[in-house]
Amino acid sequence: MEVTRKNYKDCLNTVYSAIEEADFLAIDGEFSGISDGPNVSALTNGLDTPEERYTKLKKHSMDFLLFQFGLCTFKYDQAKSKYITKPFNFYIFPKPFNRTSPDIKFICQSSSIDFLASQGFDFNKVFCHGIPYLNQEEEAQLREQTEERRNQHANGVGTPSFISPSSSKGSSHVPEEHKDFINKVVEKVEALMVNSEKTLDLEPCTGECCLKPCLCSGGLAWFPKGLHVETVETEKKERYIQISKVDEEERKRREQQKLEKEQEELNDAVGFSRVIHAISKSGKLVVGHNMLLDVMHTIHQFYCPLPEDIQDFKEVTMCVFPRLLDTKLMASTQPFKELITNTSLAELEKQLKESPFKSPQVETAEGFPSYDTAQEQLHEAGYDAYITGLCFIAMANYLGSFLTPPKAYISARSKLIEPFFNKLFLMRIIDIPYLNITGPDLQPKRDHVLYVTFPKEWKTSDLYQLFSAFGNIQVSWIDDTSAFVSLSQTDQVQIAMNTSRYAESYKIQTYAEYIQGKQQEKEKQTTKTWGEDSWVKPHYTCSTTSGFGYSRYSCNECFTLHWEQVVGFFSHVKNVRLSCAGAESTPTLFEVPEVW
Amino acid sequence: MEVTRKNYKDCLNTVYSAIEEADFLAIDGEFSGISDGPNVSALTNGLDTPEERYTKLKKHSMDFLLFQFGLCTFKYDQAKSKYITKPFNFYIFPKPFNRTSPDIKFICQSSSIDFLASQGFDFNKVFCHGIPYLNQEEEAQLREQTEERRNQHANGVGTPSFISPSSSKGSSHVPEEHKDFINKVVEKVEALMVNSEKTLDLEPCTGECCLKPCLCSGGLAWFPKGLHVETVETEKKERYIQISKVDEEERKRREQQKLEKEQEELNDAVGFSRVIHAISKSGKLVVGHNMLLDVMHTIHQFYCPLPEDIQDFKEVTMCVFPRLLDTKLMASTQPFKELITNTSLAELEKQLKESPFKSPQVETAEGFPSYDTAQEQLHEAGYDAYITGLCFIAMANYLGSFLTPPKAYISARSKLIEPFFNKLFLMRIIDIPYLNITGPDLQPKRDHVLYVTFPKEWKTSDLYQLFSAFGNIQVSWIDDTSAFVSLSQTDQVQIAMNTSRYAESYKIQTYAEYIQGKQQEKEKQTTKTWGEDSWVKPHYTCSTTSGFGYSRYSCNECFTLHWEQVVGFFSHVKNVRLSCAGAESTPTLFEVPEVW
Repeated sequence: MEVTRKNYKDCLNTVYSAIEEADFLAIDGEFSGISDGPNVSALTNGLDTPEERYTKLKKHSMDFLLFQFGLCTFKYDQAKSKYITKPFNFYIFPKPFNRTSPDIKFICQSSSIDFLASQGFDFNKVFCHGIPYLNQEEEAQLREQTEERRNQHANGVGTPSFISPSSSKGSSHVPEEHKDFINKVVEKVEALMVNSEKTLDLEPCTGECCLKPCLCSGGLAWFPKGLHVETVETEKKERYIQISKVDEEERKRREQQKLEKEQEELNDAVGFSRVIHAISKSGKLVVGHNMLLDVMHTIHQFYCPLPEDIQDFKEVTMCVFPRLLDTKLMASTQPFKELITNTSLAELEKQLKESPFKSPQVETAEGFPSYDTAQEQLHEAGYDAYITGLCFIAMANYLGSFLTPPKAYISARSKLIEPFFNKLFLMRIIDIPYLNITGPDLQPKRDHVLYVTFPKEWKTSDLYQLFSAFGNIQVSWIDDTSAFVSLSQTDQVQIAMNTSRYAESYKIQTYAEYIQGKQQEKEKQTTKTWGEDSWVKPHYTCSTTSGFGYSRYSCNECFTLHWEQVVGFFSHVKNVRLSCAGAESTPTLFEVPEVW
Repeated sequence: MEVTRKNYKDCLNTVYSAIEEADFLAIDGEFSGISDGPNVSALTNGLDTPEERYTKLKKHSMDFLLFQFGLCTFKYDQAKSKYITKPFNFYIFPKPFNRTSPDIKFICQSSSIDFLASQGFDFNKVFCHGIPYLNQEEEAQLREQTEERRNQHANGVGTPSFISPSSSKGSSHVPEEHKDFINKVVEKVEALMVNSEKTLDLEPCTGECCLKPCLCSGGLAWFPKGLHVETVETEKKERYIQISKVDEEERKRREQQKLEKEQEELNDAVGFSRVIHAISKSGKLVVGHNMLLDVMHTIHQFYCPLPEDIQDFKEVTMCVFPRLLDTKLMASTQPFKELITNTSLAELEKQLKESPFKSPQVETAEGFPSYDTAQEQLHEAGYDAYITGLCFIAMANYLGSFLTPPKAYISARSKLIEPFFNKLFLMRIIDIPYLNITGPDLQPKRDHVLYVTFPKEWKTSDLYQLFSAFGNIQVSWIDDTSAFVSLSQTDQVQIAMNTSRYAESYKIQTYAEYIQGKQQEKEKQTTKTWGEDSWVKPHYTCSTTSGFGYSRYSCNECFTLHWEQVVGFFSHVKNVRLSCAGAESTPTLFEVPEVW
C-alpha cells in the first residue's frame, strides 16, 4: 500500500492494527545518499572497530534523507498454514510545519539519486506528497509552544497587543518604520467596532511581507473583547489577517474550534514518527537486511540525534527497536553460510527458493496490492521489506529441519532464532561480523596487523613492495596517507617493526599501539571540551509515555539440537571459542560468548 | 520548450541559432535551496558591504543545485514591430558520467523544495531526465583521460595487462585474493584463442563486484593482438566484459567506432555547460531579475568554483557574462522607482502592463509553446525568464518616451540602457543598491552606524532601550550577539561612544572601527595561511578557445534627454553626486560616478 501525505491519516489505523496483530515486522529504508565524505571503500575499512564504523557512518551518512520507508507485517495463519502479509510503502518528506518550524536541509548524492531514478523511483511522490515527521524533542517543543499560546489566549484581555515576528529576537516593540502601518490597522479596527460590517480583511502579505512582520507572523494576538482574529490563507497561499465581530458565545466556539484544529495539526506534524512509535511500542521482532544504516537513520530522523558514544547508541536502539534481526548476518552465519554464495538481498531471495530451502507460503492480505517476486521491484522500500521478510521465514524454517522431529514452520518467537537477535551485520569488516546491540562487541586478535603511514603519493603497489619479504599481505586503506597491512604470520610483526625503525618516508605501529594512540587522543579531546567535572554522560531511558516501550514474549517451544550444529552456527569467526553450559544440547548453548 | 536529457541533443542547434539571432537573452534559475546557514534575514544584513554579501552567499548558497535553467531569447522583427521569443526550460542534473567521474553532493532545503512542489514543479524531470554538465576543469580532465586512453590503445601490444580499479590508489598490482579469479579469466582467454568460439562473455558484476575490481572497472586494458575487449551493459544495467576474436581490419574499425563513441559521450557529459558557453560566446545582453544568485550559481556549476575574492568574481563574471542587466535594479531606479511600488517579478510584470507603461508586443516563435501571462506559471524558470524579458522591454521602451521626439521602441543596444549594465541588485542593503561588476562598488558614508556586541539573551527591545535617548534608531541584526545600530544623527555617535566606555555587558564600536578590525583579521588570516611569498593571486582571463569570449556592439542611436531626468535616474541613493560633462544633455551624463 502506497502511503503519502494525502492518504496518511486514513491509513494510520490500518497500519496500527497490522503492527498489533503481526508475528514480526520487516523494514527497509531508501536514502538520498550514502556517504558525503570518503567513498564507500574508505567508509568501510576492513579493519574498522565497531566504534570506528559507527562514528564514520554517523559523520558521513546522517545528513542524507530517509525518504522512503518500507514496512511489511507478517501474521501467521495457523488454519491456512501460511503468513498473511501487509506491505506499506511510506513516502517521507520534512515539509515545514509552519513558519517557525525547523527548515531541514538534507544532502543528495547524485549517484544514489541516479540509481533510484533508474529503478523508477517517483521523486514527485516524495517531495510533493511526502509525510512529514518530528523527532521527540521537536514534538515536545511544538506541544509546549501550543500550550503556551493556549494559556495566552485564556488570559488574553483588553487592549491590542502585538507578539513579535517569528525571529527568536522578537519583542513586543513595534519598530518605528512599521508604526504607520500598525496605526492604520488600529484605525480600521476601531471603525469596525462601530460600523455595520461584520469582518475586516487586512491586505494579504505578498512580496512586501517583510514590512509588516508584526501582523503577518500571525502575531496580532488579541484585540478588544468581541473581536476574533484569525490568519487566513487564500488558495494562492497568500496569507492575510481577518478580524471579525463576534459575541462571547461565538467567540468561545471559534476558540474551541481553533484549539482542536491546532491539536490535529500538531498530530499531523508528528506525522510518520507515529508509525515508528507504534513499531517500537509493539516490541515485535523487526527484521531488516543489512539494516545498520536503516536503524541509524530511523533513530536519527524520528527519535533523536544519534549519540556520540556507541554504547549510548546501543541503549537508544534498544529503546526504539527492542528486538532486531538482520537477514544479511543470518545468511552469512552457519548453517546458511555454506549454502548461500551471495548474500545481497535479491540473490538471497532467489537462492532461498531453491533446495534445501523452501519458498515460504505467503498471501497478501485483502485490500493490499500484492507483490510478484518474479517482477523484482527492487529498491522500492515496501518491496524490499517484503522480500526481507520472506528470506527470514525461509531461513527460520530451514532451522526447523534440524529438530527431532523436524518442523516445517518455525515462529518468530522460537528460541532457535534467538542467537541472531540484536546483531547487526557489519559490511566488509574482515573479522567482526556484527555489531552486538545488547552486549560488548567481539574483540578479535589483530596481532598480525600493522598501522602504516606514508606520503600521499604512495599506491597499493608501494605497500606490496615494502612488505615483499613477508609473503602474502592484505592492505586496507584508511585514507590517502595511512593503511592497515595484515601480515600472514604474527611473528613477522616484530621483524617489520625493527626494520622500519630508521625509515623516514613511512612509519609503522602495531595495531595495539594504534588503538592506544586513538584512545589517548579521544581522552584528551574529551577533557578539553568538557572538563573532568562538567562531563555528564547522557543516559537514554525507554520512556513508556513517549510511545517507545519494550515488551517481552515468552516462548514455550521445545527442541533439541546437535552440538555440531551449534558449533557450526558460529564458525564464521576464526578461532571461535564457545562457552558451553554442559555436554547435553540445550538452548543455553546458543549464548554467544561475549569476548571471542 | 522543455529540454531534458532525452531531447537535449536534438535541441542543441535550435538553442544555438536562437542565441545567435537574438537581440538579447533573459535567464532565470531555480535552486534546491537558498541558505544552508543563517536564515535569509541574517544572510542579507541591511548594512552588508558588497564583499560581505558575496562571501556570505558563496559560503551559504553554493552547495545547492541549480536544477532548472530558463533561457528566453528575444529577437526584434522590424517588419512586424514586435519581438519574436524562443523560451527554453532546461532540467539539469549532475548524473555521474561514468564510474570515475565526480559524484556530486548537493543540499536540498525543505522549505524551498516544498515551495517549488506547491508550484507544480516536476522533480522527476530533474532527477530522472536532467541534463548533465561539467565545469571547465572537469571537462579538461575528462578530455585528458580520454586522450591518455587513446594513446595507450595506440601503443597497446602484447601480453595481458591490468589497469587497476577506479580508486585513485590504483596500481597495476593484482591483489592476492583476486589472483584466482584473474587466472581463471586468463585460462578462458587462452582457450578462446584456440577454440572455435567467436566471443567470450565474462560473468556480469552483481553484488560481488567488489571481488573483481580489476575486471569490472573496465580496466582489462589490452589483450593479445587479435582480441577485442569491451565492457557491455545489459538492459538491467549489469556490466560484463566481452572478449571477441577479430582480424586486424575489424579491430581497427571497432577501435575507430569506439573512439567516436567516446568523443560523443564526452560531449554529452559536458552537456548543459555547452549552452552557457554559447551564451557567453555570443556576448549578447543577458537580462535577469534579482540575478546575483543566478549568476553566481551559473558560474559555480558550469564554469569554475567561485573565487574567494570579490574582485576575482567580477573578473570571472565578465568572462562568462560580458553584459548583464538586472530588471529588479532597473525597476528600483529612477524614473521607475516612483512608478513601481512592488519590484517582485510577478508584481512588476503586472504593473508594467498599466499606464504609463505599455505591454510589449511579443510573439512566440513557431514551434515553441507560448506562455500566457494571465496563467502565471511563476517559478518555472523558462516562464520567469520570459516575463523578465517582457519587463525589460517595457522599461526600456518607457525610456524612449523621454526622447525628443519620443521613440516607442528602444533596442537592447541603445545607449539609454547602458547605465544599467553590469550592476546586480543587492537585496535589502539599505544604502548600496547594486554590485558593480565592472568597477569599484559604492562606498556610502556610514558615519551614523554603530557596531554593538552584547550577551546572546538580548532582544531588539534591549537595543531600543539602550539607545532610547537618541530618538529613532534602526537595528540590523548580524548574529545572536551583535548588530548594527543606525542613529538618525551622526553627531550622536560620539555621545554613544562616550557613554558606553565603561559598560560591561555590551560594547560599541564605530562602523569605521568595525571595518578596520575586519580588515586586520583578514590580513592576519591571509598571512597565516599562505605566507607573504607563496601567495599567488589567481587571475581570471577570458579564454576564447574555451568558448567564453566577449564581443562588443556599437551603437548608432542618437537622442537627447533632459537634465532633470538624468538626476532622477540616480536619486535613489542619498547624497547623489553626479559628475556632469557639460550643461548640455549628452549620453556622457549617464556615466555613474564611481564613488558616491
